[in-house]
Amino acid sequence: MATSDPSQFSAESYFATQPPPSTLEQDIAGVRTFVAQQRELGKKVVLVTSGGTTVPLELNVVRFLDNFSAGTRGATSAEYFLKAGYAVLFMHRQFSLQPFSRHYSHSTNPFLDLLEIEPPAVATDPLNITVTPSKRPELLEVLTSYKEAHQSGLLHTLTFVTVNDYLWLLRAVSQELSVLGRGVLYYLAAAVSDFFLPRQKLSEHKIQSGKGSLLIEMDQVPKILKPMVDEWTPDGYIVSFKLETDPALLIPKARAAIERYGHQIVIGNDLHTRKYEVVFVSRVPGSPDVHDISNSWLRIDPHAIDDRGHPKEIEEDIVAELVSRHQAWIDATSGGT
Amino acid sequence: MATSDPSQFSAESYFATQPPPSTLEQDIAGVRTFVAQQRELGKKVVLVTSGGTTVPLELNVVRFLDNFSAGTRGATSAEYFLKAGYAVLFMHRQFSLQPFSRHYSHSTNPFLDLLEIEPPAVATDPLNITVTPSKRPELLEVLTSYKEAHQSGLLHTLTFVTVNDYLWLLRAVSQELSVLGRGVLYYLAAAVSDFFLPRQKLSEHKIQSGKGSLLIEMDQVPKILKPMVDEWTPDGYIVSFKLETDPALLIPKARAAIERYGHQIVIGNDLHTRKYEVVFVSRVPGSPDVHDISNSWLRIDPHAIDDRGHPKEIEEDIVAELVSRHQAWIDATSGGT
Repeated sequence: MATSDPSQFSAESYFATQPPPSTLEQDIAGVRTFVAQQRELGKKVVLVTSGGTTVPLELNVVRFLDNFSAGTRGATSAEYFLKAGYAVLFMHRQFSLQPFSRHYSHSTNPFLDLLEIEPPAVATDPLNITVTPSKRPELLEVLTSYKEAHQSGLLHTLTFVTVNDYLWLLRAVSQELSVLGRGVLYYLAAAVSDFFLPRQKLSEHKIQSGKGSLLIEMDQVPKILKPMVDEWTPDGYIVSFKLETDPALLIPKARAAIERYGHQIVIGNDLHTRKYEVVFVSRVPGSPDVHDISNSWLRIDPHAIDDRGHPKEIEEDIVAELVSRHQAWIDATSGGT
Repeated sequence: MATSDPSQFSAESYFATQPPPSTLEQDIAGVRTFVAQQRELGKKVVLVTSGGTTVPLELNVVRFLDNFSAGTRGATSAEYFLKAGYAVLFMHRQFSLQPFSRHYSHSTNPFLDLLEIEPPAVATDPLNITVTPSKRPELLEVLTSYKEAHQSGLLHTLTFVTVNDYLWLLRAVSQELSVLGRGVLYYLAAAVSDFFLPRQKLSEHKIQSGKGSLLIEMDQVPKILKPMVDEWTPDGYIVSFKLETDPALLIPKARAAIERYGHQIVIGNDLHTRKYEVVFVSRVPGSPDVHDISNSWLRIDPHAIDDRGHPKEIEEDIVAELVSRHQAWIDATSGGT
């Protein structure tokens, strides 16, 4: 594995040469309606991106490169943002975890195990399906929140599969959300590929084996935080994530991103400890020096229990911290307009 | 994308150099118990493999190559094999579809939408959770089959993620099942990578971007059908799958596999038509010429309805055909022992 000379796409050349997903217009029409509703209600809105993106190796896709992500961070955070009063645009990888249903993974907590078949009171009636009594309180809590979110229209879901879907959607959604100005928080938790195969280099059919080893050369995905901050949604409050496996790289890379893109926060996390600690890296508010960047760690006890008796989720504290910072930022900046 | 000179692993050199998954021994202990139970009951057993395999690019996995497969073929077929009286060893990619719960994908048919919250008969009692009446008959049918399969011990599940997990598990499981002789059908529906990265070539940490394009070179996965037929389970009835996107390659490649590996059947399917047609490629029974290979297409009407009023699934017919061929083969070969 090695890297060679860059064949670098800018965001502009990317969108000029790579085709949009076929469902883009329809997706954006849905977002436009959602945005209009939240504007009317005066709601703050968060865009949560979640899950990994794929890089297909073939036009008729059999093989693809993927990024590890079940979507836990995004799906969990979306629930806490709803609880905090935000309207949530949940943009996720198809089949990654979603708010509410995430509690009942088919592998770890299959919902069919929650249900029981019981004989009816009257023998000639059909059999009853009931919920196992020990599972009822938690299911009732999840189900209630799920139904509230859907009936109130405060949760709107979009899906992507490829990194190309993701990039096109992110640009269009940011542009739609930009009408809400500083009331929009961008929580970019998706694990987005750094590399892609331009459409022009894709094989049409399944790559055949039997001819020796496989050689794949991929181009770099353009850095889209820069145009996002500068052009797509200049008033947004943007939180990006940085995942590393080498702890020594985490803070330097997060600081470099803040310096380079000028957005509000990078949340750094290490693959192995990400459920218990993250670091918020951001410019020191009010400091005249743009290189004045501070780190603040947020940690939870891995065995902590929340006030409903469930294992504590670090996303509860991440979201609380962001909600408070977002409001402080709105207050600090709104004086000037 | 290109292929270069082979750096070819034999099955033997593969297992001598690549480390086994850490859960292998525990998984195999479970299989051994399952096999002993089925032997006692005199059950025929099918090993269904299902879903895609990953090829991690890093030891601390952030990125991986994957094969497109939701696991529909395997999960659906497993249900029909259970119905036909087989015990089923279901070896699937973690988070791919599973028998029974496949009917309630979180994306397309979320189970939370099946449930309703109702006030209790007595106002001071807790709220009730009930199943939406229109959804009850189908859920009752699925739930009944699910509980029967689990309570009878006729469905045993194993999971894999990487192609390395898959190869080690397949070898060990085949060796365990071989004690059941001709009563075992192997239904190898998993989408297994043709390429892998030997442990010795893996990066330890996340590959860094920002240094230009990404170059990946992968080695060929050894062809394991050969040792499976010759050594691991010589009495098994082995059905492999061949997926192509170029229709012109489908039958030639399926025939070549039968000639090369000498197993019983290749089921060929095209990515775009696989839900409505497949082709069974196999040696002509009784023919003295090993090159005497026949194709027989199995097709369903895309709009067909099965006898329970649901959309017809081609797996129902695939499984019926295989159950009949497996029995005929047992009958034909048992005379000689």
